[in-house]
Amino acid sequence: MIAAEYIGNKSFKLVTAAEQKPAAGEVKLAVGYVGICGTDMHIYHGVMDQRVAPPQTIGHEMSGTITEIGEGVEGFELGDQVVVRPLDWCGTCPTCEAGHTHICQNLKFMGIDSPGAFQKYWTVKARTLHKLPKTVDLKKGALIEPLSVACHDIRRSRLKAGEKAVVIGGGPIGQLVAAVAKSVGAEVLISEVNESRREFANKIGVESVNPLETDLAAYVDEWTGTKGADVVFEVSGVQPAIEAMTQVAGRRARIVMVAIHSQQPPIDLFQFFWKELELLGARVYEAEDFDWAIELIASGKVDVEPFISSVNSLQSIGDAFASMDNNPQGMKALISCNEE
Amino acid sequence: MIAAEYIGNKSFKLVTAAEQKPAAGEVKLAVGYVGICGTDMHIYHGVMDQRVAPPQTIGHEMSGTITEIGEGVEGFELGDQVVVRPLDWCGTCPTCEAGHTHICQNLKFMGIDSPGAFQKYWTVKARTLHKLPKTVDLKKGALIEPLSVACHDIRRSRLKAGEKAVVIGGGPIGQLVAAVAKSVGAEVLISEVNESRREFANKIGVESVNPLETDLAAYVDEWTGTKGADVVFEVSGVQPAIEAMTQVAGRRARIVMVAIHSQQPPIDLFQFFWKELELLGARVYEAEDFDWAIELIASGKVDVEPFISSVNSLQSIGDAFASMDNNPQGMKALISCNEE
Repeated sequence: MIAAEYIGNKSFKLVTAAEQKPAAGEVKLAVGYVGICGTDMHIYHGVMDQRVAPPQTIGHEMSGTITEIGEGVEGFELGDQVVVRPLDWCGTCPTCEAGHTHICQNLKFMGIDSPGAFQKYWTVKARTLHKLPKTVDLKKGALIEPLSVACHDIRRSRLKAGEKAVVIGGGPIGQLVAAVAKSVGAEVLISEVNESRREFANKIGVESVNPLETDLAAYVDEWTGTKGADVVFEVSGVQPAIEAMTQVAGRRARIVMVAIHSQQPPIDLFQFFWKELELLGARVYEAEDFDWAIELIASGKVDVEPFISSVNSLQSIGDAFASMDNNPQGMKALISCNEE
Repeated sequence: MIAAEYIGNKSFKLVTAAEQKPAAGEVKLAVGYVGICGTDMHIYHGVMDQRVAPPQTIGHEMSGTITEIGEGVEGFELGDQVVVRPLDWCGTCPTCEAGHTHICQNLKFMGIDSPGAFQKYWTVKARTLHKLPKTVDLKKGALIEPLSVACHDIRRSRLKAGEKAVVIGGGPIGQLVAAVAKSVGAEVLISEVNESRREFANKIGVESVNPLETDLAAYVDEWTGTKGADVVFEVSGVQPAIEAMTQVAGRRARIVMVAIHSQQPPIDLFQFFWKELELLGARVYEAEDFDWAIELIASGKVDVEPFISSVNSLQSIGDAFASMDNNPQGMKALISCNEE
């Protein structure tokens, strides 16, 4: 079968790889579509080469169809449409024992720490699978994984109908967070410096402001009648957002840290005391986030169609990555892995 | 009546002041004992002169007895022992309307923003009162206010029996937090650099370590079997604690920010993401914290007797403040305000 290997230095190589027979507890999937994630982009830039150890097949935002079922796997049939929750947890550490397998102390992320989905067939543990209704096409199915990130962020925030949420950063995850926030009945504002991303927000029915032109804190103060935001999602990863998040947060607000800050930014702890703020770290997703994301797409409550910027063949994966590189207009490029 | 006025520059003046007749909704209290709080110490050092506007009678950790009752006050009788929850909220801002009167947008703190308890009689709104059972003596009653701070911190943390908590900083509030944590059935470790404070911890049955001699992160790792602490209370206000708090916190741990950090310290946000940590700001207390603190003392579940370092006359308030200044051995100095 054909597989794409990341070989370092913004490059992929197409290889012919052996299909892997599913062992006990595993299934083999015909990969449908695989999205390019921000993390894949980091890998592409070489900053994760030590962890990824190229050459390696990466990719983890996927949908597919079951083509072979290993021994002992129950509840799935050949031809089932599925998505993979790409987490491989140990099951025995104190965190797994406490039920938080998604932040397992020995967590391996499939497509980063082990081979991923940019190939024609992918063999995975059945415990990672979620069924996708036949009514959802596989292109949209490839959006389930990033939508599950957003669902996890919303669950961490305890956002309720009628509350007001500010999303700082209008990239794909920020926009998905805004879409899920809307679906629970919250009012949402995206703060985003890039014009095309603000236009995207407007396209999906979310209000947006440019914090370089508008005083965000003053805007939120007026928007909320001096109450401040109930929930803030920091999805940008930049220092001005760290300053803004404690400014726009109302008393007892919850701030969800979605962005990965590798630096240690100075934080206005006085505001945490004064307003009794909460900061909630959020990492990947749990099984219920995938279930929720599938329900949101299947029911039409969240329309992910506008997020699909392009669909590319596996043969043109290098071009697809290049086209998404520093391209704020692109939301989600999909790679089609099972075309003849 | 006699009253002590803070007049700036580490000085108090004893004055003869008029007793204030309770207006409608108010009561007049014969002040029993008033503790010296860390905030009082800040005022003493002059750093809050703009807010306090000396000359002013300060003091807010108090117990007393009702001597006069204003019109329309129900549920209290002359001679009732009470403590004051020294918060004056507006009742009309969005935060008050949401039920969080303790962090009211227009909150005034009695004894800081308005006259306090270092005087023979204090007239206050009846809505600030909590009844103290006759079985609790007024000296211990003066500890209800700081104990309520600790109760609030514990409630914010959602600490449960069997969990492991690290308290960073063994001053009066840190030790009270440890005592309340013990009372709910948690295992507690205090990290404290000062030897006399570690000895105090041991005296009240709480384990302690010196983080300058012992690698705290390694110690907690072993203590918790690699799981990390379930809850961390940052009560020290120093930068090394900010580093330690994210290190000793286990996955999904709650970190309660009790200390007031006026600087904006760099925080390891990556750990918030990686371990899905929570940071919870905590400010003063709510009515239920006072109720809980009273119950803890009345039932003997928390013994505050060891916290009383000295009892001083109102006449010697200046000496009492001087003796507590930079004195890590002192926990709580009380001023007796109604001795003849």
